[in-house]
Amino acid sequence: MSDFEEARDTILMGTVREETISEVEKKITAYHEAGHALVAWSLPGTDPIHKVSITPRGMAMGVTQLLPEEDRHYYPKKYLMNRLSVALAGRVAEKIVFDDVSSGAQNDLKEATSLAEKMVSQWGMSDKVGPLNLGRGEEHPFLGRELALPKRYSEEMAWLMDQEIRELMDRAETEADQILKTNRKALDNLAGALIKEEVLERDAVERIIKESK
Amino acid sequence: MSDFEEARDTILMGTVREETISEVEKKITAYHEAGHALVAWSLPGTDPIHKVSITPRGMAMGVTQLLPEEDRHYYPKKYLMNRLSVALAGRVAEKIVFDDVSSGAQNDLKEATSLAEKMVSQWGMSDKVGPLNLGRGEEHPFLGRELALPKRYSEEMAWLMDQEIRELMDRAETEADQILKTNRKALDNLAGALIKEEVLERDAVERIIKESK
Amino acid sequence: MSDFEEARDTILMGTVREETISEVEKKITAYHEAGHALVAWSLPGTDPIHKVSITPRGMAMGVTQLLPEEDRHYYPKKYLMNRLSVALAGRVAEKIVFDDVSSGAQNDLKEATSLAEKMVSQWGMSDKVGPLNLGRGEEHPFLGRELALPKRYSEEMAWLMDQEIRELMDRAETEADQILKTNRKALDNLAGALIKEEVLERDAVERIIKESK
Amino acid sequence: MSDFEEARDTILMGTVREETISEVEKKITAYHEAGHALVAWSLPGTDPIHKVSITPRGMAMGVTQLLPEEDRHYYPKKYLMNRLSVALAGRVAEKIVFDDVSSGAQNDLKEATSLAEKMVSQWGMSDKVGPLNLGRGEEHPFLGRELALPKRYSEEMAWLMDQEIRELMDRAETEADQILKTNRKALDNLAGALIKEEVLERDAVERIIKESK
Amino acid sequence: MSDFEEARDTILMGTVREETISEVEKKITAYHEAGHALVAWSLPGTDPIHKVSITPRGMAMGVTQLLPEEDRHYYPKKYLMNRLSVALAGRVAEKIVFDDVSSGAQNDLKEATSLAEKMVSQWGMSDKVGPLNLGRGEEHPFLGRELALPKRYSEEMAWLMDQEIRELMDRAETEADQILKTNRKALDNLAGALIKEEVLERDAVERIIKESK
Amino acid sequence: MSDFEEARDTILMGTVREETISEVEKKITAYHEAGHALVAWSLPGTDPIHKVSITPRGMAMGVTQLLPEEDRHYYPKKYLMNRLSVALAGRVAEKIVFDDVSSGAQNDLKEATSLAEKMVSQWGMSDKVGPLNLGRGEEHPFLGRELALPKRYSEEMAWLMDQEIRELMDRAETEADQILKTNRKALDNLAGALIKEEVLERDAVERIIKESK
Repeated sequence: MSDFEEARDTILMGTVREETISEVEKKITAYHEAGHALVAWSLPGTDPIHKVSITPRGMAMGVTQLLPEEDRHYYPKKYLMNRLSVALAGRVAEKIVFDDVSSGAQNDLKEATSLAEKMVSQWGMSDKVGPLNLGRGEEHPFLGRELALPKRYSEEMAWLMDQEIRELMDRAETEADQILKTNRKALDNLAGALIKEEVLERDAVERIIKESK
Repeated sequence: MSDFEEARDTILMGTVREETISEVEKKITAYHEAGHALVAWSLPGTDPIHKVSITPRGMAMGVTQLLPEEDRHYYPKKYLMNRLSVALAGRVAEKIVFDDVSSGAQNDLKEATSLAEKMVSQWGMSDKVGPLNLGRGEEHPFLGRELALPKRYSEEMAWLMDQEIRELMDRAETEADQILKTNRKALDNLAGALIKEEVLERDAVERIIKESK
Repeated sequence: MSDFEEARDTILMGTVREETISEVEKKITAYHEAGHALVAWSLPGTDPIHKVSITPRGMAMGVTQLLPEEDRHYYPKKYLMNRLSVALAGRVAEKIVFDDVSSGAQNDLKEATSLAEKMVSQWGMSDKVGPLNLGRGEEHPFLGRELALPKRYSEEMAWLMDQEIRELMDRAETEADQILKTNRKALDNLAGALIKEEVLERDAVERIIKESK
Repeated sequence: MSDFEEARDTILMGTVREETISEVEKKITAYHEAGHALVAWSLPGTDPIHKVSITPRGMAMGVTQLLPEEDRHYYPKKYLMNRLSVALAGRVAEKIVFDDVSSGAQNDLKEATSLAEKMVSQWGMSDKVGPLNLGRGEEHPFLGRELALPKRYSEEMAWLMDQEIRELMDRAETEADQILKTNRKALDNLAGALIKEEVLERDAVERIIKESK
Repeated sequence: MSDFEEARDTILMGTVREETISEVEKKITAYHEAGHALVAWSLPGTDPIHKVSITPRGMAMGVTQLLPEEDRHYYPKKYLMNRLSVALAGRVAEKIVFDDVSSGAQNDLKEATSLAEKMVSQWGMSDKVGPLNLGRGEEHPFLGRELALPKRYSEEMAWLMDQEIRELMDRAETEADQILKTNRKALDNLAGALIKEEVLERDAVERIIKESK
Repeated sequence: MSDFEEARDTILMGTVREETISEVEKKITAYHEAGHALVAWSLPGTDPIHKVSITPRGMAMGVTQLLPEEDRHYYPKKYLMNRLSVALAGRVAEKIVFDDVSSGAQNDLKEATSLAEKMVSQWGMSDKVGPLNLGRGEEHPFLGRELALPKRYSEEMAWLMDQEIRELMDRAETEADQILKTNRKALDNLAGALIKEEVLERDAVERIIKESK
């Protein structure tokens, strides 16, 4: 593991080590995607993994693809909690391995925050907010762009929702953290395989995880 | 009932059981619509049931149709409280049977919240807010879309209304919950019949409920 | 009066009794308009009644017309308090007779709230707000619609005004309530006559009230 | 004075007395304008009276004209306090004589509130707000109408300004009240002369006030 | 000084004394500009005086011109504090001499408030707000006018900034007050010379101040 | 160092000393850029210095260029904290040397505040705000300009973010302060060299710093 300690230091040091930025970033990406994949695999009821890749494409440095869910119409709260954990798992992996978080999780956080916002304010999944659909986060098209609807609830209610959204995110992060720490060896092996192979299909992911037990 | 425990677990597990997602979702829909129908039937003064269906149409997975109310001009508070209970009953049924809530109740919550908002802020039906019409939720057309009117009340008043809207929703949910738990057998039988028949007319609904006593 | 108890139950039960919705709504309308008329007649200084009718026209189920006030330029606070009581009297009559309020009072509440808002925030008629014209409720034309002016007072002041508006409405409602309860016989007789005749001219209204003493 | 008690009751009673609304409103207008004139005459440094009239013109039922101030560039705080008192004096006179206030003071209140707002928020005349120009009440032209500028101060500051504006208005009202009560005979005589003559020039006003001592 | 006591009373009395408004206003203007000039001269590091004039031009009744600063790129906090004191000095002089403040300081207050706002919210010069640039007071061009940017900070932060802006203004006002009271003779002499000469060049200002010691 | 004490006094005194404003401003610029460069050099993992210059260009009086980072995709929190320290170092150097801060740091503060805002509200780097992406500071194009998105969080959350942004800025400022005070000799030497040479390449900066130990 000293190899990864080195990676951690290198990323913080910039280019002063013998590794280049792009070598370091490849390691971060590998751990980030391995985090997503391992938590997705571990949680019951999550959509199955299709492929994990650390080949940069567009803005994304890597991607963990789950099987399409086009024929699902109900998203139960327990299923959604799992989605939050999977979304945060890349960032949690960075934290565990490199003892730091990076700006690279911006989109994961954005999607997860938006999902938690819907759970709390549109789907009645917070006991503190209750069975209300307050439409927070809903948007209407206007002059060719999406326009947020004016809020119809009080500041107190907005704060209550903020706290509940935070609560869901914290719970999801804790779950991801426990899974990744408990399965650290699988995490390292997945990341290592990704660095070597760049792409792992579903079967390879499952095999590596099972062999790491 | 072990059949339904199985359904509950399957929905949480995704496709890892022998049932497909669509089989599981059919069960959820059946219970959801059975909840609407049973509460509508049980509350005095509610518009009578016309038909209950779990045939998907457009975005909706099912529908419980009540008889049209086109010739009604007064909506008494007691009648409206019943409407809230009927609207929330699908979600309550999901909670009772599957021990979880899903995103599928989004539109029910939206309509019920909007109705409770009108009761509190336009029809003077909250003792705490008093006999005021503060116009919350009213909209004006502007540049081809509905534009929320600027609010003319304070944040404190907005919070008071939020609490009262929440209070109405909680009371309606509790009522639905009591009816469905008291008549669990009727709920199961209605859901079972819906899974088998997909559509139940008014007479069938009434017969099943009466035979379940 | 058992006739009216029946009406009250029927309206809550929908169509399950032998009376149709429209028969029940006619009774509610009759009491609603009788309430307006009786309070208008009872308060000193109110504009005199012209006609009371329960013939539906457009959105309105009935109407109580007071004599035009086109040559009045000063609206003293005492006169305006009476107007608030008259406006709320229809809803108060529903509450007394049917032990419920309905959405039918929406426009009464809207006009009364708007009047109370002007009293408090434009005409200096609240001791707590003081002799200020803060322009709340004023509107400017803009792009073909009325546009609320941006508020120039604080949230604290908005809340103070909300409380004072509420206070005026409560006082007016209490006054209507006392008049209608004290003259319950006149209320019943006016409503009964309206159900029979559909329209009552000023003289008929006065005669019925005087005969009910 | 029993004549005025009658006027007071008549206005509250509407047309049920032998006086018509327009006769009553003439009396109110006479007292309202007499109030403005008497306070303007009594306060040192106020612009001198030009003419007082109770001939209705446009929206206005009467007018008290002060001599033009076109060559004044500095408005000292003491001078402005007097202006506030003069502006509120019509309403105060109504209150003293008829024991009620009316909507007729709307424009007086609007101008006085706007002036007090400038004193507090643009001219640094409140010790609690301090020597700041926060621009509250300033407007910019935009798309052919005056558009309020977005506020650049906090809600706390807005509330502080509201309280100071209220404080200035209260102080001005108290001053008008003391002058009118101390000179009640002059007030009655001015109002009486206005009812008879409809218009009083400066000399007549001064003579009546001096003869009433 | 009895001459100035007379001026003070006259301005408050309007035209009832033997002096005309324009004679009184000339005195006020003279003291106002003398205040600016004396404080500008007294504070180290302030840009040097170019000319002081009480000849009305456009909206302005007088002007104190400092030498241009076109080649300065850094505005140190101490230099800016001096600018605030100079800006407030005209109003402070009015207060000291006439025991009143007038609307004539509106532009001084506006410029000083805007400068203090920048110091606190854009240049990190408040210890309580800290080294942040929160952009308050910044504007963007939009549809041909300056449009305030939407605020990105909380109400609490806005209130903190309001208090700090107030604090800077108070400190600057106190400084001007001390300078003018300590040098009252120079203030009177400068004002007297301005009334006589209407315009004073830099040398004359310096000579009068030095001769007043 | 008496030379710099003189500079400090001169800048506060304006042109009353023998140095011109532009000579003084050159000294300030030299210390400002030396501050950026010294902190950038001292912190591990910061992008390496390319060039430091005090030749005015456009609005800027000087510039410290770091090597481009175009191939970096992850910005770890520790790296970003260093960027904040470097950004604030110019202002900190002014404070240490001249015992004052100036408006010249406006852009440094703006960039640093904006970065800290992203860290707290988009990248989940504040433990108090948690792993949320609340989109504060995000902008959308609209009618040809960037339009801030409407906020979706409460005032309480906005205040929490303000405090965390402040916290990051304070920590960064403290770090810069410690580095510059510990290496005061290097700071003076860098500034001195800049005044003489106007531009320093990377090698010269490193040599001067090392020779100052």
